[in-house]
Amino acid sequence: MKPIVEVANHVGITEDDLELYGKYKAKLSLAAWEKRKDQADGKLVLVTAMNPTPAGEGKTLTTIGLSQALNHIGKKTIAALREPSLGPCMGMKGGATGSGNAQILPAEEINLHFTGDIHAITAAHNLLSALIDNHLFQHNSLRLNPSKIVWKRALDMNDRSLRHIVVGLGDTNGIVREDGFMITTASEIMAILCLSESLEDLKERLGQIIIGYDLDDKPVTAKQLEAIDAMTVLLKEAIKPNLVQTTEGTPVIVHGGPFANIAHGCSSVIGTKLALKLADYVVTEAGFGADLGAEKFFDIKCRKAGLTPQAAVLVITVKAIKYNGGVTKDELQKANLPALEAGFANVQRHIENLQKFGVPVVAAINHFATDFAEEVAFVNEKCQDLGIEVAVSNVWADGGAGGVELAEKLVSVLEEAPSHYKPLYDLNNPITDKIKTIVTEIYRGSDVSFSPAAMKTLGKIEELGLSDLPICMAKTPYSFSDQASLIGAPADFVVNVSEIRLSAGAGFIVVLTGNVLTMPGLPKIPAAQHIRLDKNGQVTGLM
Amino acid sequence: MKPIVEVANHVGITEDDLELYGKYKAKLSLAAWEKRKDQADGKLVLVTAMNPTPAGEGKTLTTIGLSQALNHIGKKTIAALREPSLGPCMGMKGGATGSGNAQILPAEEINLHFTGDIHAITAAHNLLSALIDNHLFQHNSLRLNPSKIVWKRALDMNDRSLRHIVVGLGDTNGIVREDGFMITTASEIMAILCLSESLEDLKERLGQIIIGYDLDDKPVTAKQLEAIDAMTVLLKEAIKPNLVQTTEGTPVIVHGGPFANIAHGCSSVIGTKLALKLADYVVTEAGFGADLGAEKFFDIKCRKAGLTPQAAVLVITVKAIKYNGGVTKDELQKANLPALEAGFANVQRHIENLQKFGVPVVAAINHFATDFAEEVAFVNEKCQDLGIEVAVSNVWADGGAGGVELAEKLVSVLEEAPSHYKPLYDLNNPITDKIKTIVTEIYRGSDVSFSPAAMKTLGKIEELGLSDLPICMAKTPYSFSDQASLIGAPADFVVNVSEIRLSAGAGFIVVLTGNVLTMPGLPKIPAAQHIRLDKNGQVTGLM
Repeated sequence: MKPIVEVANHVGITEDDLELYGKYKAKLSLAAWEKRKDQADGKLVLVTAMNPTPAGEGKTLTTIGLSQALNHIGKKTIAALREPSLGPCMGMKGGATGSGNAQILPAEEINLHFTGDIHAITAAHNLLSALIDNHLFQHNSLRLNPSKIVWKRALDMNDRSLRHIVVGLGDTNGIVREDGFMITTASEIMAILCLSESLEDLKERLGQIIIGYDLDDKPVTAKQLEAIDAMTVLLKEAIKPNLVQTTEGTPVIVHGGPFANIAHGCSSVIGTKLALKLADYVVTEAGFGADLGAEKFFDIKCRKAGLTPQAAVLVITVKAIKYNGGVTKDELQKANLPALEAGFANVQRHIENLQKFGVPVVAAINHFATDFAEEVAFVNEKCQDLGIEVAVSNVWADGGAGGVELAEKLVSVLEEAPSHYKPLYDLNNPITDKIKTIVTEIYRGSDVSFSPAAMKTLGKIEELGLSDLPICMAKTPYSFSDQASLIGAPADFVVNVSEIRLSAGAGFIVVLTGNVLTMPGLPKIPAAQHIRLDKNGQVTGLM
Repeated sequence: MKPIVEVANHVGITEDDLELYGKYKAKLSLAAWEKRKDQADGKLVLVTAMNPTPAGEGKTLTTIGLSQALNHIGKKTIAALREPSLGPCMGMKGGATGSGNAQILPAEEINLHFTGDIHAITAAHNLLSALIDNHLFQHNSLRLNPSKIVWKRALDMNDRSLRHIVVGLGDTNGIVREDGFMITTASEIMAILCLSESLEDLKERLGQIIIGYDLDDKPVTAKQLEAIDAMTVLLKEAIKPNLVQTTEGTPVIVHGGPFANIAHGCSSVIGTKLALKLADYVVTEAGFGADLGAEKFFDIKCRKAGLTPQAAVLVITVKAIKYNGGVTKDELQKANLPALEAGFANVQRHIENLQKFGVPVVAAINHFATDFAEEVAFVNEKCQDLGIEVAVSNVWADGGAGGVELAEKLVSVLEEAPSHYKPLYDLNNPITDKIKTIVTEIYRGSDVSFSPAAMKTLGKIEELGLSDLPICMAKTPYSFSDQASLIGAPADFVVNVSEIRLSAGAGFIVVLTGNVLTMPGLPKIPAAQHIRLDKNGQVTGLM
């Protein structure tokens, strides 16, 4: 690893805009963007993927590897990624820092406490929770309805026992009511931090959070609890973007990590906008497959922040295509051209969808050592038949050098195919229309049905005059539909909206299809049991 | 503020043992002590106080000011303090970083997230909690009794609603059981971190935590849940001492912040031991008055860590003495020599008590601008009558210069009166004898009564072969007795032990007298409501 000061200097950041967290991590000042606001932006590239499968597609890996490859061919590039959450690291998933020769470093620290951003969000979140219950206990001058508090508590841990709890038991311990914890990355505060453009903006949005309803069913905001400044103070370091580097010394801004279902699943606007001032190319990613992640990237993040994405890279793998062609996980190692042919419908639909946002698309075949040459050639040809550029990416094995073909094709597309980026729907359309547009245009379902509870909330949102907010879909990532088992390119399905939630602070309407958990559980054998620390302080089993 | 690198260099710490957290905070490597283990230690001085009163005694202030004063007269000195907890900062108390011209800096950051130590403890604590409930949910191969889980959850927040909760509600959310949250500083993990001498020691102690009992009523330890390495990994940075500075650039190690009732209330052993290698004088403090804090400092921390304290400074104030002489809070501003005469019994008893530990005692009259000269002179004379050195301290107004008299008297005592430090009781005595010794020798009560529940736990501890652990008393700090209203120097009272808890990992037996809360609540007007952040990012209202 290079000293982070050196990595920062390489993109023109000097010590006055750099706050060191050890030798290899730093926070960048909010003034760094301010100083460069009149400079031209670099080109923003989204890395997204086909629907995820148990085989793993390598979207983060490709994002990191592509940023290395661009630097490798002489293009000044920064990657912009989300911060990993501690809960899943201790549960099922392991780290979220890439692998092989396309990793971000120091991986162990990034996966653990990093620069404390998520802990700060936990603190700000639970301060608001404590103030709500204290308000109920002390006098309840706001006439809060204890059974209509929608603000839950938060912890960065996978802990199913905290999903649904009763608080305030005992003689003098407050008001008894039902409550629950979500994982911190699902907190509206995380989404707010990722969408804010300044500390003032953050404070404003925190104030708009609806924490519950009063006895007249009128919304009560966080601002009314009079601690928005205190919450902002807790977040004033967390809002500053973090700088680290890849295994090849490429600068990476790792900042913000919202859940990709209950929130928009993209790294911070502040980090992305700063990266665009510091580099000619910025490679970023969005959570889940393109149907969820890319749609929210274009319709929520880019629209809100006034960003103009220049291209999208769709990560595909031979195995994931076969899986979407009906092959079971155990059979994925075998060559199977008919399954590839069938499963390619999934890829084709994602490509068409991305083109609807007006951006040129490049396909990246993330190559595995076990892939058969004829399969790779087949997928390559299928992509070319659609008239898009396609490249085989070997960044896991070869780092930036393994992504040169992809980088070169991307650069030529960026130079030759201008972006005509536009969001999918008009914010002024009715909420139901906006949802239907996403379902029919992106998912390719035939219709949407709304539960009575969802319709009731819709009415409430209209009454509050907030129906011009963008839509944040919460849906299984495994299928275009709302049923995980419908892989490939399903059609003629109806999407069932079970619930609608208003995130008035973050500024979007969450549309839940099916049962979305906001607090994960630990598996039978948690990843934590495999973590080891040796006598020299070396950690293994974390990634 | 000087750059922290400069402060570190001043005490011989070079960059390889320094991990920067911004320009003014740093962590010191564990190797820093190892490299100096054969060097002689500096002199360790405890700052303690008479029983606390609503007027405030200024123990932390005096600790900081005295360290500045010692440097002022040319003695190389480091202060060793506890880390503030975020919960009380947002609740009643405000910060814990001194005030006036005897503060530690950067005060705001130290009072907020600092270097993330307390957040790391919260994470490690709740990982263990999640593993316990996951174990119950998945298979319960350890045959844990769900109604005998003694390990609660933790948050660094004042949140009374979380004191007593029911978790695991809902269809698939685990096993329903009663539970509760404590504030993180009350976590046994915080006490363990503060008493550990190395990462290995920490890991060993974490493994010994008793999380509950099985269906045969046998203790189940954290080690049996197989995540001690993961917990240690979460704590591997938190165990490193933090270096900051005072308003006069005096180096201060701020590390660990255990509750002074449920735990021993002293800063970390690792931090204290390192400070003793780096300076000729180390000034540290212990929580609450001398009856609780100093007793635990001598009997738990120093005994466990093999430290030899050389002197104790007893902080007293004219107002606190009058309060202990029966004057109400509103009348403290008036001169009242008879009340001073009466209240001095409290001071005298603390002095005698400190002498029982074999250390020389110096009294520090923490001076307030509103004090009357005749009152100060009276207290001064009373102390001299007891044959101890006494000095008026003006560090709030004048910083180190205001503590020169105190520093000089302390230095002469350290040079002339050798320490014959010894703990109060022998660890091999029966538990009840050890408790009785503290009650009769220090509190000056006539006897101890034990509740049936306490007696039952005593039996259990004996059965486990752990009766040779030291005693950690949990008692009201406001009185020598277990009743807060018995101020001054009460006698002939009986101390009632309501409950006994075993902290097998921390290595002490907690003896609770009365109702000890481990999760504070927020007051009617929480301090959080007065915190402000202006457009330039300046924070007010935090301290």
